[in-house]
Amino acid sequence: MALIVQKYGGTSVANVERIKVVADKVKATRDAGNDVVVVLSAMSGETNRMIALAKELNATPSAREMDVLLTTGEQTTIALLSMALHHLGVDAVSMTGDQIRMKTDASHSKARILDVETENLQAHIKAGRVVVVAGFQGRCENNNITTLGRGGSDTSAVAIAAALKADECQIYTDVDGVYTTDPRVEPNARRLDSITFEEMLEMASLGTKVLQIRSVEFAGKYNVPLRVLSSFKDGGGTLISYEENKMESPVISGIAFNRDEARLTLSGVPDQPTVAAQILSPIGDANIDVDMIVQNTVGNGKTDFTFTVHRDDYLEAKVLLETVCQELKAEAVQGNNEIAKVSIVGVGMWNHPGVAKTMFETLGEEGINIHQIATSEIKISVLVDSKYLELAVRALHKAFELATEPKEEK
Amino acid sequence: MALIVQKYGGTSVANVERIKVVADKVKATRDAGNDVVVVLSAMSGETNRMIALAKELNATPSAREMDVLLTTGEQTTIALLSMALHHLGVDAVSMTGDQIRMKTDASHSKARILDVETENLQAHIKAGRVVVVAGFQGRCENNNITTLGRGGSDTSAVAIAAALKADECQIYTDVDGVYTTDPRVEPNARRLDSITFEEMLEMASLGTKVLQIRSVEFAGKYNVPLRVLSSFKDGGGTLISYEENKMESPVISGIAFNRDEARLTLSGVPDQPTVAAQILSPIGDANIDVDMIVQNTVGNGKTDFTFTVHRDDYLEAKVLLETVCQELKAEAVQGNNEIAKVSIVGVGMWNHPGVAKTMFETLGEEGINIHQIATSEIKISVLVDSKYLELAVRALHKAFELATEPKEEK
Repeated sequence: MALIVQKYGGTSVANVERIKVVADKVKATRDAGNDVVVVLSAMSGETNRMIALAKELNATPSAREMDVLLTTGEQTTIALLSMALHHLGVDAVSMTGDQIRMKTDASHSKARILDVETENLQAHIKAGRVVVVAGFQGRCENNNITTLGRGGSDTSAVAIAAALKADECQIYTDVDGVYTTDPRVEPNARRLDSITFEEMLEMASLGTKVLQIRSVEFAGKYNVPLRVLSSFKDGGGTLISYEENKMESPVISGIAFNRDEARLTLSGVPDQPTVAAQILSPIGDANIDVDMIVQNTVGNGKTDFTFTVHRDDYLEAKVLLETVCQELKAEAVQGNNEIAKVSIVGVGMWNHPGVAKTMFETLGEEGINIHQIATSEIKISVLVDSKYLELAVRALHKAFELATEPKEEK
Repeated sequence: MALIVQKYGGTSVANVERIKVVADKVKATRDAGNDVVVVLSAMSGETNRMIALAKELNATPSAREMDVLLTTGEQTTIALLSMALHHLGVDAVSMTGDQIRMKTDASHSKARILDVETENLQAHIKAGRVVVVAGFQGRCENNNITTLGRGGSDTSAVAIAAALKADECQIYTDVDGVYTTDPRVEPNARRLDSITFEEMLEMASLGTKVLQIRSVEFAGKYNVPLRVLSSFKDGGGTLISYEENKMESPVISGIAFNRDEARLTLSGVPDQPTVAAQILSPIGDANIDVDMIVQNTVGNGKTDFTFTVHRDDYLEAKVLLETVCQELKAEAVQGNNEIAKVSIVGVGMWNHPGVAKTMFETLGEEGINIHQIATSEIKISVLVDSKYLELAVRALHKAFELATEPKEEK
C-alpha cells in the first residue's frame, strides 16, 4: 500500500461535473489500495473574480486581507470534493491550511512554508480517510492567514508529500505530461515518461509552463517523486525524480524556448571591477528581472556588457541604461526586442561531446544567426531573432531525434 | 468613548456599492469617537448559491463539510469590508471565527457558543483598529469549523458584545426598527423607540421576523443593549433593553401575528393524568412543533384536548392524531387549518386591568369569533379564522392607540 498525494489544479475543479471526475479518480486510486491525500486549488476563474471584487473597493488592497479573501477559494473546493467523495461512499474529510498546521512566514501573498505538522493528517489517514487539503494557504506565527502565491498549491502538495514521506506526489493539470518541446510549435513533440529534477528546473524556467518552478525545487530538495498527469486524459504522465532511467538515457531531453526576450547592450564601457553592479543596480531597483548576462572585453580597457530582459520591460530598461551610459561614460546603448531564446536541456549532454556543435551546425544550416550563447551543465541556450524561433525549435527537435523513443544504451 | 458592536446582515453587504455604504457608516461611528467591532454575514444569495452547489454533488451533504463550505461566505465579506475601510483611511483588520477563538460545541450547522476569548480582539481595539469579525462561524473543541445556523451572525454579534462588555450591540438590517405591528397589514404601524427584551421575545416568536430570537435571549441573558437599525435609512432604530423608559410606558407595545396556524382537537378523551403526554408524544417524535395547548375538562370523566401546529404540518399531525384517537378510545379528531394567531404584547399590560376585556370587546365588535385564548404575563394571544387576521390586527392597533406616541404617565 502506497501513500499518494494528488494535487488537482483550478481547471480540474472548475465546476460540479469536473469535481465529480476528480472524485472518481481519487476513488480509483483509493480502490487500488493506496492511502490518498488530495490537495486542491480554487475553481479556475474564482481567484480572478475575487481580485476584481477587491480592486473595486481598494485599488491597492492590503496583502493580509487579500490572503483572507483568496483562501476562501480552496476552502470551497475541499468541502465540495469531500461531499462528492462521500456520495461515492469514500470516507473523506476536508482540512484547511490552519487545520493541517501549514506554518509559513508572514510574507502575505508569497509566503514560504516553514513546517507542516503531520499529526492531524496521519490520524485521519490511519483512520482510513481520504484527506482533502486546501492548497495555497497557510498560517504565520501570528495566526494570520497567508498564501504561497499563484500556483502555490503545487508547492503545498509537495510540502505535504515531503512531510508525510509519500511515495509519490501527483500533479494533475490540463496537460498530460512534460513534452520534448511545445507541441504547438513542433507537432512531433513527444511526451517524456521521465525526466530528472534538474532537467525539469531548466525546462520550467525556460518557459515550459507545466509546474511551478518552486514546487520542483522543493520536490528535488526533499526527494519527493513528482508525477505530472492530465485530469482529463488517461495516461502515465511524466515522472520527475532523481532516478536516471537506464533504459532511457537520452543525450538531451527537450527543447525549451521563450518568445518574449529583449536584449540590451552597453558598449564601450570602461573595464572596471564594479561595472557589472553599476549597470545592473538601477535595473534591479526597478524590479526588472535580468536573465542572460554576457560581458565581452573588447580590448583597449573597454568592455561590452549585454543582458536580456522580458520584452515588456524593454523600454523601461533601455531608458535606465541610457542614464547609466552617461554616468559611466560608455559609448552606446543598443537594443533588440525581437529576440527569442531557445535551449536544449539534458543531463546526458556532457557525456556526449559534440552536442553544442550539433546545435550550432543545425541552426547554421537553417541560416539562423546566433546573437548570444549561454551554457550550464545541463543546458545550452542561444538567442536568435524571434522570427526564427519555430524554425529553430523544429530543426533542433529533428537533429536530436526527440520524436522517437530513445533506445537502450549498451 | 463607547465600545459599539455593529452587525450588518447579508443584504447590507450584498455587493460592492453596499459594502462601501457600510464602510461609511463604520467610519462615521469611529469618527464620533467610538471603538467599533463589526460583525458580518455573507453576501445575500451566497449561502443559497453554495447550498445549491453542494446539493449537486451530494443530496445529503455532510454537516461538517457544509460548515466548511458556508463559512467562506463571511470570510469573503470581512476581507472586502476591511479593504473598503482601508480605502477610507480607517485602520481595520479582519478576523475569522477561529482567529477570535469563537468556541462552540460540535453541533455542525446549529452549534452553540461556549466561549469567546477577547484577548486578540482587545489587543486590536487597543491599537486603535476597527475589528471586522466573521459572524455565524466558530470552532469546536476538535478544531472543526462550525456554524451557528441561519441568522447566527446576530448571535455572534451579541456574544462578542457580551464578552467585550460593549456599550451597545447594533443590528443593521433591512428594516429600520421594531414596529407596533407589520406595516404591510396596518399602514399606521409606528416604529418603537424602545422595547424590553421580554416584549421583543414575544414579538419575535409570534412572527415579527426582525431579529433571530436566540440573539435576543442571549442579549437579555448578558444584558447587552441591542439596537435594531436600517442599513439603508437613517434613524435611531429600536433599542431593546431591560430599561423601562419612564417617558414611554405604553400599556401594550405591539401586535404580533402568525398567519400559518392550524388547530387540532381530540375530543372525548378519557381524563387521565398521562393523557397529554400520550397525545403529544407521536407529534413530537415526528418533529412537529406544537404551539398553543388547551385542555378543557367537559365533565363525565372526559376531556377535550386542543393544540396548534404550523399549517404545513397539519395533515401529518392529523393522521398521527387519528391513531392516538383509536388507542385512547377518544371520540373524534377535529381540525381547522384556516386559523391565524393574533397577540397583543406589552410589559405594562398587568398594571392595566381591562386590557383583555378591551381586546375581546374590540374583536367582538368586528364580529370576529375567538377560537382559543392563551395568555402569559406580557401577552394575550387569540386564534381567529384566517380571513379575519388583517381586520383583527387593524382593529386592535386602533383600540390600543398604537399609531400615536404614548404620553408621559403622571
